[in-house]
Amino acid sequence: MPLKGVRLIVSYDGTEFSGFQLQPNQRTVQGAIEEALRKISGETIRIRFAGRTDAGVHALGQIIAFDTYRELRMRNWVFALNSNLPHDMAVCSADPCEPGYEPRHDAVDKTYLYLMHTGVVRQPLLRNRVWHLGKLVRRDFPDPASLNGATSGLDVQPMQQATQRLIGTHDFGAFRASDDTHKTTVRTIHYVRLIENYYASPDILGIEVRGTAFLKNMIRIIAGTLVEIGRGRMTIEQFEGLLEPGADRKKAGETAPAHGLTLVSVTLGRQRQKTKSEV
Amino acid sequence: MPLKGVRLIVSYDGTEFSGFQLQPNQRTVQGAIEEALRKISGETIRIRFAGRTDAGVHALGQIIAFDTYRELRMRNWVFALNSNLPHDMAVCSADPCEPGYEPRHDAVDKTYLYLMHTGVVRQPLLRNRVWHLGKLVRRDFPDPASLNGATSGLDVQPMQQATQRLIGTHDFGAFRASDDTHKTTVRTIHYVRLIENYYASPDILGIEVRGTAFLKNMIRIIAGTLVEIGRGRMTIEQFEGLLEPGADRKKAGETAPAHGLTLVSVTLGRQRQKTKSEV
Repeated sequence: MPLKGVRLIVSYDGTEFSGFQLQPNQRTVQGAIEEALRKISGETIRIRFAGRTDAGVHALGQIIAFDTYRELRMRNWVFALNSNLPHDMAVCSADPCEPGYEPRHDAVDKTYLYLMHTGVVRQPLLRNRVWHLGKLVRRDFPDPASLNGATSGLDVQPMQQATQRLIGTHDFGAFRASDDTHKTTVRTIHYVRLIENYYASPDILGIEVRGTAFLKNMIRIIAGTLVEIGRGRMTIEQFEGLLEPGADRKKAGETAPAHGLTLVSVTLGRQRQKTKSEV
Repeated sequence: MPLKGVRLIVSYDGTEFSGFQLQPNQRTVQGAIEEALRKISGETIRIRFAGRTDAGVHALGQIIAFDTYRELRMRNWVFALNSNLPHDMAVCSADPCEPGYEPRHDAVDKTYLYLMHTGVVRQPLLRNRVWHLGKLVRRDFPDPASLNGATSGLDVQPMQQATQRLIGTHDFGAFRASDDTHKTTVRTIHYVRLIENYYASPDILGIEVRGTAFLKNMIRIIAGTLVEIGRGRMTIEQFEGLLEPGADRKKAGETAPAHGLTLVSVTLGRQRQKTKSEV
């Protein structure tokens, strides 16, 4: 039997995973999927993937590839994997690829979504999915007459302006974790959108970002910095200054919590001509 | 200090509760809130509520009332309770009421939402919130070309027609759990709506129902029966027959799972003149 490549689109709720990558004695996304593959194929399979996600970060369209000698129709990989994966993970589709196919090298860009809840009172049903900004994020915001339905008073209009400044190629040195090890901090953002009424809910605000590659915590720091603007504690000019080479991380906002972030999709393309969609 | 009544709007994720009502050695909504009230007031407080919810059922607007000697501004009851409640519960608002006020007697009607996921592949981020109908609920539905984004092929149009038949006063004897103990099975539904694209998602279908009172599992059996219609296994005429006195429970659909159901709100009114909104 020849070695075959399989490429998956995978979705997971990051809440109960200690991140993506395999770690001894930790529940990880990679560990869960390699265990399911071992059960189905009887082989020890090491997966490749488009990009790691931090602990607590979710995915709707992570790309995972692996090689196997096991003969299975593509749709049956989907059903077999979903029968063997825990309920906080699912495989959405499978298609064939070259053995050794590397999603990381094939990724043209990635789209992330960051969700914020602007209601004063937390929303239990969304607690692992959105960043709850909490009570009165703007200091000058008056006490609401009723807490039920009251919002934190974020001013969305300057946040909208700031998101447009992110588009293009900039030095994102002020938007990375202190332990980020990338050599260059220049990155290109193709598209950003601040979405009000996310989930058709008046108090959910989404930030959708598409770019070639990102620094560690980059989107979470962008989210934290946009909130500073919405609170009236940072001007658009100050925000633009953060996109200049040598800008100070300390002048940007806080790193927004991981659970508000979702990897929505990965655009593949560099090696697309080699694969054909079957399922 | 005089005894005072406090009325709360409460939200919870039912996933990790063994239902609403107090049970020894079980984690219940009532148990969690009475424990938080004990910590804040130092008193042993027994709550009253608009209606119990089953294990796994969620609430956005449950009504809870209690009496206390503790002096606290209404908004501070909200903040103190939210600091002492687990993260899968929240108090949205508090307002004063008469001591002894009974939300159950004051409830004019209740609105419930039942959510269904019609995608073929399960959605991990919604797993505790929606009923995943799974693969190919209609027998005649062709194999989808790709599983990613494929739907279970539910036919929504006859489901829309059927929901309209529910409005008004009917004998819901075929729509109750076998252990339901109500003496009369006649109930009145004021409003029903089948909502496509719930959460702005093409594969989420919602059923919103408002009525005076409900039999045990009534909405979950309505949801299960509407799916039979959407699958093409029940006609509108058969559905109408189920609303006649003496109709057979076995001819209705299955009881849809608890985790798809949410108590959205309770309309209060009978005693409204006695209360004034302060927070």
